[in-house]
Amino acid sequence: MTTYLIAPDSFKGSLEAHQFCQIAENVIQQINPQAKVISRPMSDGGEGFVDSFIHAGVAERQSLWVSGPLGRRVKANFAWQADSKTAIIEMAQASGITKVRREELNPLSTHSFGTGQLIEAAIELGAENIILGLGGSATNDGGAGALMALGIEMLDANNKPIGLGGRSLSDIAKIAPVPSKLKRLNWKIACDVTNPLLGEDGATAVFGPQKGATTEQLNALENAMHNYANVLEQHSQKTVRDHAGAGAAGGMAAGFMALFDAELVPGFELLQQTLQLNSLLEQHQVDWIITGEGRMDEQTRFGKLPLRIAQLGQQYQVPSIAICGSLGCGVNELPEFKAIFSIVNQILSETEAMQHAPYLLEQTLSSIIALLECNASNAEN
Amino acid sequence: MTTYLIAPDSFKGSLEAHQFCQIAENVIQQINPQAKVISRPMSDGGEGFVDSFIHAGVAERQSLWVSGPLGRRVKANFAWQADSKTAIIEMAQASGITKVRREELNPLSTHSFGTGQLIEAAIELGAENIILGLGGSATNDGGAGALMALGIEMLDANNKPIGLGGRSLSDIAKIAPVPSKLKRLNWKIACDVTNPLLGEDGATAVFGPQKGATTEQLNALENAMHNYANVLEQHSQKTVRDHAGAGAAGGMAAGFMALFDAELVPGFELLQQTLQLNSLLEQHQVDWIITGEGRMDEQTRFGKLPLRIAQLGQQYQVPSIAICGSLGCGVNELPEFKAIFSIVNQILSETEAMQHAPYLLEQTLSSIIALLECNASNAEN
Repeated sequence: MTTYLIAPDSFKGSLEAHQFCQIAENVIQQINPQAKVISRPMSDGGEGFVDSFIHAGVAERQSLWVSGPLGRRVKANFAWQADSKTAIIEMAQASGITKVRREELNPLSTHSFGTGQLIEAAIELGAENIILGLGGSATNDGGAGALMALGIEMLDANNKPIGLGGRSLSDIAKIAPVPSKLKRLNWKIACDVTNPLLGEDGATAVFGPQKGATTEQLNALENAMHNYANVLEQHSQKTVRDHAGAGAAGGMAAGFMALFDAELVPGFELLQQTLQLNSLLEQHQVDWIITGEGRMDEQTRFGKLPLRIAQLGQQYQVPSIAICGSLGCGVNELPEFKAIFSIVNQILSETEAMQHAPYLLEQTLSSIIALLECNASNAEN
Repeated sequence: MTTYLIAPDSFKGSLEAHQFCQIAENVIQQINPQAKVISRPMSDGGEGFVDSFIHAGVAERQSLWVSGPLGRRVKANFAWQADSKTAIIEMAQASGITKVRREELNPLSTHSFGTGQLIEAAIELGAENIILGLGGSATNDGGAGALMALGIEMLDANNKPIGLGGRSLSDIAKIAPVPSKLKRLNWKIACDVTNPLLGEDGATAVFGPQKGATTEQLNALENAMHNYANVLEQHSQKTVRDHAGAGAAGGMAAGFMALFDAELVPGFELLQQTLQLNSLLEQHQVDWIITGEGRMDEQTRFGKLPLRIAQLGQQYQVPSIAICGSLGCGVNELPEFKAIFSIVNQILSETEAMQHAPYLLEQTLSSIIALLECNASNAEN
């Protein structure tokens, strides 16, 4: 009997990690109904983060309507572990780039208020621990929107509350004391970028353009973020602007690190701990790990999720197979994987490949699993 | 120890079958130096047919300069089995579509004279058996050019020799008696098409356009071929025009069937017999067959080479893996293959995919062989 651990990241824009797992389960089931499949859809903290916990069965889904990045209501989920009083919040659920139409993207206006509403809902449930997944945000507001939603007053020079959106950070002059209910919380922030808050590697310069900012707007946003950093650091008596990762999610990491004792942790490590991937690999005789993400290339070397999964597998002598949409490097450059396959099966446009990703994945997996099961049954004979 | 039989068709325009075999040998060698690799580059009778015999070690290469489809000299090979006095001739070597620049393609002018020169050279070597592989021709001359090169006189109404090229078939009025040296030969014609000589499924209508004929030229060619058929059948007292396969290689099959006792045989069967694939599979404990061709789709069902190989494998319980450039159907539509993989590994243009075919094949094979060898070594432990 073969045991598979299916632990992919999402194929951004075409396939969610839990869809990947579902397709893999179906394919394996069809080829060998006796095979055991353990599905662990993964995420680095961005899109799919909450799903990872829910699909692993370690937390339950909580759904509510909150403010989207431009104030329109969006349905958002968080994950709730009642025993440990832990809420897993994904900022992309409320304030993600996919929640806004492309032509509306404008980080002067987009804000993270909805993410604060999710946290507020978790507090009402009795949360003592908050795991906040960053990534995939539409915002560049330093997390000020979320902080305001939590009841933290951000005031201008006239002691008036500032507005929402990245542009309002230029108005902030002072932050009112943090309510005590928030001080009791333990925070972990899942984030896989190392950008500081400001400067040429900072939140605005690096991620602003893909969030829709023009060159002129980038300057305004950077200046506003500078002002925000000054006020944050003055209020908290901490230096956060240069912290690796402070620039994550439009500077939200900086805001939360300044006002709370929030620790930045790579998304994979948080998942690995919470999902107990180590003991899973210790206790189950996993024969194959199947992982992957939309694109794999030289960047995959730099600690991207599939590589981390494969390295974990190596610790337990479990070989990993990676499946991706697009393979941009040689397989020998990623020797942590026993094999790497692309789901593209002919000359396709990007639109076609993305549209048909579920079918293409199913086809590719069918062939891979057939080979593995063929050999497995030979081994048993 | 794993034993592989590598038996692919060519990837037309990007990869010859023997290159495929070479790449597979290298990849397997690198992953498991103990593995045994048996290479049998295959062909349906067209390009690569001669190579199939030479690379299998059952015949030796003979090279000479002959006339190309437009009269320019081309270097061409045939394969020679001295023991059995058998020559294996591939019409594509002398009269193939790749021997002419695309803009020169014009079946009114292209001719098969060079193929006749190859046969003539084989006769001079002492050939008693001729295996003639058809396919990939640039010509629509009914094989008249080749027959003339063999010394068979094709005469017009004034008893003058007709010219070369498809257009001259309209001039033919009579064929002089076949020289006795040719009558002694045993002929087998390898061909994988079933088109008749004339009509809407005929040589001209179906293959003329890809050989560069305009609509007007197609009419002229069809009329000329009609005249040729009349003369051939009158001379030979045989009906060949409606024979399945008579239209192969611009009607060359019809010409040779009429004037000789030439039998049409599927290219795969000829190769299977000569290369003794059955006894190879009986005697060696082949674990995996790896085959493939440029495109696999619903057409593959209709007896294309990879399918024939996979079916042969099934007789001996040897699973086959197919590798293709382009996979145009679901893997479940071709259940004869244990697995099917495309070498395309991301969004690529056709030109890119074809240019990089050797690299892409190597990459894909690396992953496949790694999986097979990983399992094989598990089985041994």
